[in-house]
Amino acid sequence: MPFEGAYHLSTLTVNLAENSYDIVVECGALASLGQRCVSIGLKGIAAVISNSTVTPLYGHTVRESLLAAGFSVEMIEIPDGEEYKNSATLNQVYNDLLKAGVDRSSFIVALGGGVVGDLAGYAAATWMRGVPFVQVPTTLLAQVDSSVGGKTGIDHPNGKNLIGAFYQPRLVLIDVATLLTLDKRHFCAGLGEVIKYGVALDSSFFEYIDANIEAIMSMDLDTLIEVVLRCCQLKAQVVELDEKEAGLRTVLNYGHTLGHAFEAIGDYRGLVHGEAVAIGMILAAKVSVAKELCSPEDFAKISALIVRCGLSVKIPDFDRKLLLSTVAADKKSKSGSITFICNKGIGMYSMSHHTPDELLKLSGLEA
Amino acid sequence: MPFEGAYHLSTLTVNLAENSYDIVVECGALASLGQRCVSIGLKGIAAVISNSTVTPLYGHTVRESLLAAGFSVEMIEIPDGEEYKNSATLNQVYNDLLKAGVDRSSFIVALGGGVVGDLAGYAAATWMRGVPFVQVPTTLLAQVDSSVGGKTGIDHPNGKNLIGAFYQPRLVLIDVATLLTLDKRHFCAGLGEVIKYGVALDSSFFEYIDANIEAIMSMDLDTLIEVVLRCCQLKAQVVELDEKEAGLRTVLNYGHTLGHAFEAIGDYRGLVHGEAVAIGMILAAKVSVAKELCSPEDFAKISALIVRCGLSVKIPDFDRKLLLSTVAADKKSKSGSITFICNKGIGMYSMSHHTPDELLKLSGLEA
Repeated sequence: MPFEGAYHLSTLTVNLAENSYDIVVECGALASLGQRCVSIGLKGIAAVISNSTVTPLYGHTVRESLLAAGFSVEMIEIPDGEEYKNSATLNQVYNDLLKAGVDRSSFIVALGGGVVGDLAGYAAATWMRGVPFVQVPTTLLAQVDSSVGGKTGIDHPNGKNLIGAFYQPRLVLIDVATLLTLDKRHFCAGLGEVIKYGVALDSSFFEYIDANIEAIMSMDLDTLIEVVLRCCQLKAQVVELDEKEAGLRTVLNYGHTLGHAFEAIGDYRGLVHGEAVAIGMILAAKVSVAKELCSPEDFAKISALIVRCGLSVKIPDFDRKLLLSTVAADKKSKSGSITFICNKGIGMYSMSHHTPDELLKLSGLEA
Repeated sequence: MPFEGAYHLSTLTVNLAENSYDIVVECGALASLGQRCVSIGLKGIAAVISNSTVTPLYGHTVRESLLAAGFSVEMIEIPDGEEYKNSATLNQVYNDLLKAGVDRSSFIVALGGGVVGDLAGYAAATWMRGVPFVQVPTTLLAQVDSSVGGKTGIDHPNGKNLIGAFYQPRLVLIDVATLLTLDKRHFCAGLGEVIKYGVALDSSFFEYIDANIEAIMSMDLDTLIEVVLRCCQLKAQVVELDEKEAGLRTVLNYGHTLGHAFEAIGDYRGLVHGEAVAIGMILAAKVSVAKELCSPEDFAKISALIVRCGLSVKIPDFDRKLLLSTVAADKKSKSGSITFICNKGIGMYSMSHHTPDELLKLSGLEA
């Protein structure tokens, strides 16, 4: 399905039988949250889970919208940062839900980035065996990736996202205007995930990003709506075919296998996720070149676009043994071999299985 | 569907589309666990979660059966007792799963009673967003109730089962011979749940229990197979119609609303669950008499059968205010009013909504 560069629709549907839901993308969408929650039949208390950065920015608008639509509103604030996506924060959220009287006849709203969405979604999945929830992502990464598809979870002290559930939201409401308050570093990092969709799934979208990079980098909201919509549409197509990651959905891990390992060995204090994905895409593209799935010219185009998005393609220094063991410990590994996603040129993917050792060689990380 | 008192089949299927699974009931079933796991396509490591009481009794048989079928086996032991169904035990289990290298290509076996099944099932539901699991219940309560239907979870410090997920097992393997090592008190308590099915759903099953009570109390295994099969069949019928407790499934809470409150105010150190359900059924039957849904004669039959099963029908002393607040805090409450299940005579149910105050009056707990 070629990308034609002009989307006027602002709503997509993710078709998952009884778990289907809409993704609404527009400017100023936050103010419509309350009415949209009414229209999908939500009731009772809206427990808004957000963090100490986002609450001061958008908490008021969200709260007023929900109150105006007739809901009771409880604001639950968690600290801002990847390091708080853990069971201690989750237990605090459970306590707050209990105190607020949230049961299955109420619902949870996740207002924030990937950490808030993952943790609030997991709280929704597991509180009283599941209460409805709504994703209101406010970072580019969350808008194009983590808020769609129903992956929720928290980290285990020894690994990211080891504890979690597939649990679909009832609605994803994306207000691209919230990107205007996002710091440049995290905006660029989010573009790492955006490029991923182009490289692995859609060459015309890759061309669109390439042709509109100035508008994107200058935060032109019409362009951002189109970018976010297209990413959500591509992700929805994959999720519809493979909700629980039995096979195809692995394609969304393009750039993640090695990228995630670099993120992990920096103990999540070096590269942020999208930056690590950019590094991972460079390495995946190198593997693809080595396997003759991708030409050096396409590799150069991918690398150039990553750089134009303000992301580094320089491979950080690393300890070989640590990197190997981190790749091997990745939860996508199956009995020693890793399901690895290569790009076939630009816009198509190819799955293969490699040991961590082979990957280090193929990606040029060791001679 | 009348109960005819002679079941030769040993396998039931719970039909839940892609989540369908078999329940196997027989004597000596434990030894067939490995082969049955192979036949449903399970692979890799079998992580057997059990407790310090059950492991010495049945751990060896289960382990040998799984090994003989070609699985790697990891035994994970948790302490025995309701008070360990919490996040601390769960975190320990997560650590053990990580150490054992259990991922989505492996599976979890829950070997034990309700606590083991609920906690191991919840670990399976949430480890790496869900790994396959098999229920091998070894108590009567778990065999007739908690192992079937996909309710998994742990307790919150302020309430039972507040944290959980609906997550169906791939197989329920019930070896009624394990009941021979169950202490009398817990066997009788399990009969509380057995009677529940008769009173709320099936008069012919009630008559069957009544007619065969000596065989049941003397642990005649053929009779126990029939009893367990019939309970599982009744539960499966309800779960098939309402997997996630949107409505009908509430009928399985017959005797639980008030019973559970008595269990809770004793801080789970007085009545065990099935004993509390027996008290709750007496009170529910009294409410039913007060509402003219049940005759005094049927009430007397219900009460007499409970006593013949070795259960007490004497209402424990209680603090009125505490009981009221406990009933109100029950997670089945919706904005103040409780969905309450009455029996219509014997074998049929009726749902209604009452405040905790009304329930105390109707049940005769206060004049």
